[in-house]
Amino acid sequence: MPELRRDPIAGRWVIISPERAMRPGQLKPTARYAQPAPENCPFCEGREAKTPPEIWASRSSGAPNSPGWSIRVVPNKYPALRIEGDLGKRGDGIYDAMAGIGAHEVIVETPQHLLSTSEQPPTQVADTLTTYKARMTDLARDKRFVYCLIFKNVGDAAGASLEHSHSQLIATPIVPVRVQSKLDRSLQYFDFRGRCLFCDMIQQELAADVRVVTATDHFISMQPFAPRFPFETWIFPRQHISHFESTESAQLPELAALLHDTITRIERVALGPAYNYLIHTAPNNLTHSDHFHWHLELLPRLTRVAGFEWGTGFYINPLPPEDATRYLREAGSQAGRGLP
Amino acid sequence: MPELRRDPIAGRWVIISPERAMRPGQLKPTARYAQPAPENCPFCEGREAKTPPEIWASRSSGAPNSPGWSIRVVPNKYPALRIEGDLGKRGDGIYDAMAGIGAHEVIVETPQHLLSTSEQPPTQVADTLTTYKARMTDLARDKRFVYCLIFKNVGDAAGASLEHSHSQLIATPIVPVRVQSKLDRSLQYFDFRGRCLFCDMIQQELAADVRVVTATDHFISMQPFAPRFPFETWIFPRQHISHFESTESAQLPELAALLHDTITRIERVALGPAYNYLIHTAPNNLTHSDHFHWHLELLPRLTRVAGFEWGTGFYINPLPPEDATRYLREAGSQAGRGLP
Repeated sequence: MPELRRDPIAGRWVIISPERAMRPGQLKPTARYAQPAPENCPFCEGREAKTPPEIWASRSSGAPNSPGWSIRVVPNKYPALRIEGDLGKRGDGIYDAMAGIGAHEVIVETPQHLLSTSEQPPTQVADTLTTYKARMTDLARDKRFVYCLIFKNVGDAAGASLEHSHSQLIATPIVPVRVQSKLDRSLQYFDFRGRCLFCDMIQQELAADVRVVTATDHFISMQPFAPRFPFETWIFPRQHISHFESTESAQLPELAALLHDTITRIERVALGPAYNYLIHTAPNNLTHSDHFHWHLELLPRLTRVAGFEWGTGFYINPLPPEDATRYLREAGSQAGRGLP
Repeated sequence: MPELRRDPIAGRWVIISPERAMRPGQLKPTARYAQPAPENCPFCEGREAKTPPEIWASRSSGAPNSPGWSIRVVPNKYPALRIEGDLGKRGDGIYDAMAGIGAHEVIVETPQHLLSTSEQPPTQVADTLTTYKARMTDLARDKRFVYCLIFKNVGDAAGASLEHSHSQLIATPIVPVRVQSKLDRSLQYFDFRGRCLFCDMIQQELAADVRVVTATDHFISMQPFAPRFPFETWIFPRQHISHFESTESAQLPELAALLHDTITRIERVALGPAYNYLIHTAPNNLTHSDHFHWHLELLPRLTRVAGFEWGTGFYINPLPPEDATRYLREAGSQAGRGLP
């Protein structure tokens, strides 16, 4: 059984997975992932038997776990957390631990062997977002889970262990420390100002118009004022919504087109880098929050994280976000691919 | 001039270095560093002209910036922060920024082209620690700097841009967010308990004796209860000392031997991985702190950081620290290389 342990000094939680324990002989220093050949990819249509049985699928034909699907959700074959059991919270002197209970699912976004979101039609991306919403809504009913994180790894440098385009969902019994710190800071701001920090930032950015890549009717894609990485991009709903899963389904195609367009621009300018994206939504135990505003963080992996970043938690970024914005805007217009 | 910018949501600071700005054509996705051949290494004895003039050196002969040194400190040729100027703190709506003022120095640890701390004699490592202490003490006199971080990157996966064994020092005008969070938590603990969190942890670890790799008269090397990475190792002084630079000079050889031994064990068990180490000391504006206890974090880079870790700030570690401790203890005794 995996165990969740809390560091008493830093306050962060770590998942210790002894079942996957490495023994000295198995330790390969920073090895690249050995990708299966596409003809052996477990996520391609026709190889459904190579994954655990599906939890959810969008399919036009066929029985579960057979061809005919367009999106498929399966449990992670090597889950970081286990779905069954009690939390069993315990202390040990100054330490805190609990059982590694949680959900760890894989969203296979396409039956074809495509690698990036940009290679999929925007309608397919919209189906992926709809699937996120459905799974998050379902898992929020389990009272053991207080948080649900969606993330996607593309490319070896971003930690993708399989190249076939997929996202992952982890539902956890605690609010992750990075989300908690955003919740704390935005609550402080709300207490002081009576307004949402994110809403104020979006208004300031729209007025200044130097870091906004694209604004659509309901969403905005922008470079943050203090980005950790070149071309780090954030996407927000323009109106205040605390939970991703509260987004109206009718708006998801617009969001999907924006996400697709943003990734396409970044790949064009930065020569197809590895990237991660992740969604920060409000915790499940808040039904509505005036101070937290969901958002998507898109993190191209163009720079390295070294001792300085690990030591301080602050980052060195060689590309001012105002320059990055200009490059991304030009990338769209050159190709005549801007959003309507 | 580099600029320090604060993210209003996460609270972290980022250094924006427009002088090193990348233009789209210069972006190489996650390229490996192109290492100069050893015969062109700018840190080797005899090539002193290839670095900026030295700030400090330990030398048995020769004029400054000529051969005859055993340790040499030079400004970083591509500094993340600049030493001259005022902080010029400013606001812009919800954003905060200041000039990127600070010191960024390189400690060249050996005149020979060696790669890791383990290849240097422990006496040489002791000289390096003595140099850290001297530079930190000197920079603490500059009232613009509130914090001084020492770090070392070894190997490409750890972000080393030159392989010749060297450390770096960055003095910053703000307390880094990771250090601040440790200060906050240890102060909370001190307020509640009246004791140092680190001291309590060290006592609990010495009593439990399942995560202690080596204990010497004045120092302890241990695996943390919730390590982010396999073989993550912390070194502490056993007695309460808040600032690294307050460590008695007479104890530095003992610390150097422990650091050398610990890195040797990790390299033996984990097949010579890339690694970072860094020193967390108390801020300069605290002359003494009852709640903060300096320590060294040693981070082998055996696992990858992917979307989950970026999204949550928590980590998945496949190696329980109790197992890691056993492997490291055995690695020492097999080779008959344990410390006295």
